[in-house]
Amino acid sequence: MSKFQQIAQQLQQQINAGIWQSGDKLPSLRHQAEQQQVSLMTVMNAYALLESQGWIISRPQSGYYVAPQVSDGAAAVVQSEQTETNRFVFDVLQASRDPQVVPFGSAFPDPDLFPLQQLMRSLTSVSRRLSAGDAVDNLPPGNVDLRKVLARRYTRQGIIVSPDDIVITNGAMDALNLSLQAVTEPGDWVIIESPAFYGALQAIERLRLKALAIPALPGEGIDLQKLQQALKRWPIKACWLMTNCQNPLGYTLTAERKQQLVRLLEQNQVALIEDDVYTNLWQGEQAPLPALAWDRQGTVLHCGSFSKDLAAGFRIGWVVSRGHGIRIQQLQLMSTLSVSTPIQLALADFLQSQHYDLHLKRLRRQLAQRKKLAVEALKRALPAQAKIYADNGGYFLWVELPPATDCTLLYHQAMAEHISIAPGELFSATQQYRHCFRFNAAWPWDNRAELAVEVLGRLIARLCQ
Amino acid sequence: MSKFQQIAQQLQQQINAGIWQSGDKLPSLRHQAEQQQVSLMTVMNAYALLESQGWIISRPQSGYYVAPQVSDGAAAVVQSEQTETNRFVFDVLQASRDPQVVPFGSAFPDPDLFPLQQLMRSLTSVSRRLSAGDAVDNLPPGNVDLRKVLARRYTRQGIIVSPDDIVITNGAMDALNLSLQAVTEPGDWVIIESPAFYGALQAIERLRLKALAIPALPGEGIDLQKLQQALKRWPIKACWLMTNCQNPLGYTLTAERKQQLVRLLEQNQVALIEDDVYTNLWQGEQAPLPALAWDRQGTVLHCGSFSKDLAAGFRIGWVVSRGHGIRIQQLQLMSTLSVSTPIQLALADFLQSQHYDLHLKRLRRQLAQRKKLAVEALKRALPAQAKIYADNGGYFLWVELPPATDCTLLYHQAMAEHISIAPGELFSATQQYRHCFRFNAAWPWDNRAELAVEVLGRLIARLCQ
Repeated sequence: MSKFQQIAQQLQQQINAGIWQSGDKLPSLRHQAEQQQVSLMTVMNAYALLESQGWIISRPQSGYYVAPQVSDGAAAVVQSEQTETNRFVFDVLQASRDPQVVPFGSAFPDPDLFPLQQLMRSLTSVSRRLSAGDAVDNLPPGNVDLRKVLARRYTRQGIIVSPDDIVITNGAMDALNLSLQAVTEPGDWVIIESPAFYGALQAIERLRLKALAIPALPGEGIDLQKLQQALKRWPIKACWLMTNCQNPLGYTLTAERKQQLVRLLEQNQVALIEDDVYTNLWQGEQAPLPALAWDRQGTVLHCGSFSKDLAAGFRIGWVVSRGHGIRIQQLQLMSTLSVSTPIQLALADFLQSQHYDLHLKRLRRQLAQRKKLAVEALKRALPAQAKIYADNGGYFLWVELPPATDCTLLYHQAMAEHISIAPGELFSATQQYRHCFRFNAAWPWDNRAELAVEVLGRLIARLCQ
Repeated sequence: MSKFQQIAQQLQQQINAGIWQSGDKLPSLRHQAEQQQVSLMTVMNAYALLESQGWIISRPQSGYYVAPQVSDGAAAVVQSEQTETNRFVFDVLQASRDPQVVPFGSAFPDPDLFPLQQLMRSLTSVSRRLSAGDAVDNLPPGNVDLRKVLARRYTRQGIIVSPDDIVITNGAMDALNLSLQAVTEPGDWVIIESPAFYGALQAIERLRLKALAIPALPGEGIDLQKLQQALKRWPIKACWLMTNCQNPLGYTLTAERKQQLVRLLEQNQVALIEDDVYTNLWQGEQAPLPALAWDRQGTVLHCGSFSKDLAAGFRIGWVVSRGHGIRIQQLQLMSTLSVSTPIQLALADFLQSQHYDLHLKRLRRQLAQRKKLAVEALKRALPAQAKIYADNGGYFLWVELPPATDCTLLYHQAMAEHISIAPGELFSATQQYRHCFRFNAAWPWDNRAELAVEVLGRLIARLCQ
């Protein structure tokens, strides 16, 4: 270990020990160099290393400050060294693809729930009338008919969106990544939820951002007071949040809290990247609105997708933005150039029929049934200490075991029995959800699933002893 | 302007004036601070600014050095501030989409050259037999049949590629971007050609890399001696090069030079990202091999696409990598998740027939004819000082006008007449190709094109006066 790494490590230990606390100003470079009897370059390198790891923040013309820490209570820092987590996410996703494995850890819904016949009919019909010029016509911002249908669906909810405010993307991940990149520079601070969709954590690493994770609770959502504190205290550029059917917790923010959220962000001129891919799977009475409905100043970049409720593997998503559309298109031209033409046309064709709404109605009923059966089976099989959170949205359940239980270990033990789960570790840069896991309840509730839940129950009982 | 910006500007002026030259060590932070009577933080900020702009390079445990400059002769620095260029690229591409505009500035080939009927048949056939599980089966690395067909096509050229070494991507831009990201970290140095495909310049900006541009000549290609010097002198991580049918110059490196290139990069442990999207359009006798053919150590990441020779708008590309495949798949899962399933299946279906080779044979003949007519028309219409470079590959011509001619001005004048060209400015971070433009010869040679070339000739004659 070279000198500057040693100094960085010392400082990191001092921060962990609470000697330097969140918000404290660190000694100046010169002071530190004199004290440690090393060159300024060495101290500078040590500070740069700590900054790149998210331990400290530099404020121009002022100096270095300790970044918000886990011990801060309000928020945790996501370290930029996420390579291990990324590999684990990758492994978990790959493992749940094996047909031999019971896919409770999968992120995808059962594709048998989707109207494949009708989609194929649209694709066939479109492929008969493709023309040579279509490729150019459907470059970013994307197919105009598709954007019109989407705009009309927003209008039905009372949200005025022009087709010109929509950019079609390669699925929601692409929409979210492009949106985040459009409103940040590397090194910027971003707010996410804790726990959060691992895609948000990965995007933050990929774009070399730093993140504050604001705690969220099942059934309730993100803590707006802590969000407000964080906005006051740190130079935040954007928030990436799920306001409806949050992954993994399942909560939906109330209308009041969404309005509050948007106002807060407006006041602080912070962009909201709203990840809204599960609302169409809402199983309650009236589907909730997105935060976009309260947007007055172009604060919200609203990202949606058809991958969860209509067409797995088609890879069509979109972003609504009243201000960043051109930048998003530029970034798209630099990364994937555009979205596949026949697929855009097929989706536009399908959506112009009534099939989509009829399909969604049936899909919601089926998911509600499956979720009910899954919850019942889990309640039967899991020890009494296990808390099972089920909400009206999406198809994920969140299971919380006693604090000492290691769900990463559970994941490996279950995989040995050909059962996958999504361990809590995936949803945070810290280990604070290691006693939790996400359970995908979208798959058919058959004998195999029933038996798998029983095995899971036995494994958990053993771990909880 | 704050103090540190002033100091940065002074230093930049001194570098421009040759007071500090490429490779010179700058005064230490402490020394500079004493001399300028400012704080260390100020000097540090000034140096950091200059480093982020590519003027200087820091070497750990050593200090700051002046980066290679345009005046260096060997290579030019790409500044990270490319936003203006990006917007111009975007505008030029958007403008050439207008059917009212003669698309000499377009990057795309005439889609009427593509076998749309047969592709549609494949798409129709595939959409009849799509199954629910297909979405999961075709996640990264992508459809196995498609990867097998691609591997067999490499084998026909004598290059052994396993289907496991191939990752299917959303077109070549995606393949190139993922490859570049897989082998670099932000701040790393990358080598490109000068002039280069603007996509390379954009990727470098997007990924916050710094670039050395090695001069290339029409008919000849990149200067390998200067490449060798640059590799010796600077901490290069990767090269992004087009070895066949280079865009915009059209040259193809000889087999000997490709072998030399790969050996050089092997010795220096520098990855080669080989952008090879035009070789299928080769119009000479024997199609040239890619540099991949000489790769022994996994140095080459070979990126291809069907967008230029088969299916515009389908957005399917791929990368062959013997070592970075897993990293590329991880990055893909984080950005677009995967490539559209029906499109992958349709391409695999089409490529398993004999249609592709028959189509390519006809396509090459048609492009050679159109190019010949375009060159003749340009020779008739342009003043004698104009040099027109046409090569065996691809469909671009490179036109060089007398040094003082402003082709950016020409672009705007031509656009007023509904004619687009791709001004030389797009292909470099410097202004050194401002007297050149790229001409797309893939479009039908009709009366409209003939008249447009005459107008272009008159505009150029006026500018050259």
